Amino acid sequence: MRFLHTGDWHIGKKLHGYDLLTDQKEIIDQILAIALEQEVDAIVIAGDLYDRSVPSVEACELLNQTFIQMNLEKKFPILAISGNHDSAVRLSTGMPWYEQTNFHLYTKLQQAFTPIEIGDTQFFLLPYFEPIEARLYFSEESLTLQEAIQKIVAKMRDLFDASKNHVLVTHFFVAGSSRSDSETTVEVGGLDSIPYELVQDFDYVALGHLHSKNALHTEKARYSGSPLKFSLSEENDPKGVWIIDSQSMAPEFHQLQPKRDVKTLQASFATLIDPAFYQEMERSCFWHFQLTDRSIIPNMMNQLRSIYPNILGVERVNGRTETNQIKKVKQRKATPYQMLTSFFEEITGDSLTQKQRFWLDEGLQEVLDTEKREKDAT
Amino acid sequence: MRFLHTGDWHIGKKLHGYDLLTDQKEIIDQILAIALEQEVDAIVIAGDLYDRSVPSVEACELLNQTFIQMNLEKKFPILAISGNHDSAVRLSTGMPWYEQTNFHLYTKLQQAFTPIEIGDTQFFLLPYFEPIEARLYFSEESLTLQEAIQKIVAKMRDLFDASKNHVLVTHFFVAGSSRSDSETTVEVGGLDSIPYELVQDFDYVALGHLHSKNALHTEKARYSGSPLKFSLSEENDPKGVWIIDSQSMAPEFHQLQPKRDVKTLQASFATLIDPAFYQEMERSCFWHFQLTDRSIIPNMMNQLRSIYPNILGVERVNGRTETNQIKKVKQRKATPYQMLTSFFEEITGDSLTQKQRFWLDEGLQEVLDTEKREKDAT
Repeated sequence: MRFLHTGDWHIGKKLHGYDLLTDQKEIIDQILAIALEQEVDAIVIAGDLYDRSVPSVEACELLNQTFIQMNLEKKFPILAISGNHDSAVRLSTGMPWYEQTNFHLYTKLQQAFTPIEIGDTQFFLLPYFEPIEARLYFSEESLTLQEAIQKIVAKMRDLFDASKNHVLVTHFFVAGSSRSDSETTVEVGGLDSIPYELVQDFDYVALGHLHSKNALHTEKARYSGSPLKFSLSEENDPKGVWIIDSQSMAPEFHQLQPKRDVKTLQASFATLIDPAFYQEMERSCFWHFQLTDRSIIPNMMNQLRSIYPNILGVERVNGRTETNQIKKVKQRKATPYQMLTSFFEEITGDSLTQKQRFWLDEGLQEVLDTEKREKDAT
Repeated sequence: MRFLHTGDWHIGKKLHGYDLLTDQKEIIDQILAIALEQEVDAIVIAGDLYDRSVPSVEACELLNQTFIQMNLEKKFPILAISGNHDSAVRLSTGMPWYEQTNFHLYTKLQQAFTPIEIGDTQFFLLPYFEPIEARLYFSEESLTLQEAIQKIVAKMRDLFDASKNHVLVTHFFVAGSSRSDSETTVEVGGLDSIPYELVQDFDYVALGHLHSKNALHTEKARYSGSPLKFSLSEENDPKGVWIIDSQSMAPEFHQLQPKRDVKTLQASFATLIDPAFYQEMERSCFWHFQLTDRSIIPNMMNQLRSIYPNILGVERVNGRTETNQIKKVKQRKATPYQMLTSFFEEITGDSLTQKQRFWLDEGLQEVLDTEKREKDAT
């Protein structure tokens, strides 16, 4: 049999405040297209379907529609687990009915001991859990995550059908993996990590949690990685899904093409705003600019945004002409208002909003009024 | 065929801050027991399953478990619609899979035109909708609710099978109904009401929205009412479900027994705290006390709560000995601290919390300090 391994969809996630729902919809369509083209017998989703325990209505709608399309319309069996970003209870809504059409959505530790057989392979679905759940399940106080995994895998081994292949689907940090900026630090490494050896009895471990497909370098255990780049540190990460044939268990990577890529570019401001330059660019990408300029650029962000709507950040790679510049402004007898707006732009690389300009004006007026009153009083 | 008509479960609702989840669980168990005993062929739930568009995890768990029990375990077909308190999208999660086991959960206007046949009866499930949805559906600007209902019912009539009975399940305010305090005023009456005549073609209209079963006096259209009392104004409302036999379409009321009832009691404080009296009482009820006393009762609420854990309110039916009493306190040369605590109890009927006493103390100290400083300065 053949299956597709994906995970960490994080539906509803925002990238530096930008809504990714349409990007997520499109990338899921691409995943479905690969599943169809590769004629897989199952779609495995290794947790973190949503980005938050209480997803927005729009996020719910996208996931609901995705499941309908994949499972009810295209008839793909789905093997999915909840990740640490999902609310197990909320996500489990509808689960016992899903089972009727080979859509297995496991959100509780105890479900991990009901393997699912497809063709020559037994799938064990182990959702993300907190140590407290394992302690309750095994009635053992102070069980560590590693100890819990050991017990769980031992229990799974008892269920192994020797004539079948064995695949584990789970959502944890496997020790030795490297992380990117879009996973929260507290969630990875240290006490919460699992040595690979604990899960080496499986023919393949379909992992979720880390967002880079290259986070772990083992032939038999792989992170699918997120289908989209969720941080600048993933800029050069190829994003995609694994296709695994149970006969070889050798994962084959199939790349996805995002609607809006995440990119860094080093250039001067003059270049960036030159039509001859930007007309050749993918302007709708999520851009991080490394400006080569050192001088103050008035209204910089607004000018850039009018050309590049999705800017993640602007960085000055050559530093800035600082105190001298500010002195020059002073020498030119700038008004306090001008000085403050220049200073703000200098420091933040952004210009004041209308509201901020209003507050500045109000503040300055108050200072002037106070000064006047004090002068009048003396 | 026979069906049970309920609605307005409002799972997750709180009564004056008291959690009702265990009461709701128990009352749903009673509804299920009636369904079993009456051997009904369907359970109709006329909207407002949840109290809020984003229910708590505990509320989700209760509703998920309820559906599993009613539909998957006890094999009852369920006919449910979303009400104005539900989020149509969130509630619809799993819906296409539910259909496989005769669990029909309609949350969109267009679904209303897919009637469900059970035995000799056609059920039309019309979820709560905002006029804008009807305007989009019928591509008609400025359609009122009444006009929308007229069009909807006309379209349903075209689908009538003349050899069957016709039942409408919906969640609106039918003109001529009376309301209780637990429905929000903005939701009922006026522009949002539907004249009964518009739905008179149905053999029975299973309504949700109003919380009293007696809100509308028509044989062929009934509110189920909420299964629990959600306000003091429902104190004397019998709560229950309707059982309808399609042969007569005459609804038969089956009462429910809440774990904790809502009750009003007129008595003196001395009586209420007398063990001989309260040991005979259902102390765990949600009590509203009408105190006959006129005098100040120190630490009143704390004393009452130590006996009656669920107090909705305390009212003084004979008024209070007001200004004289305060004067007397003054005459007794009470400290400012004593005067303020007495005044607070007098006015609110409640005693200060530890935090409030701390703040009072702090405030008084500040006043004294200021007075002292001013005296020292002169």
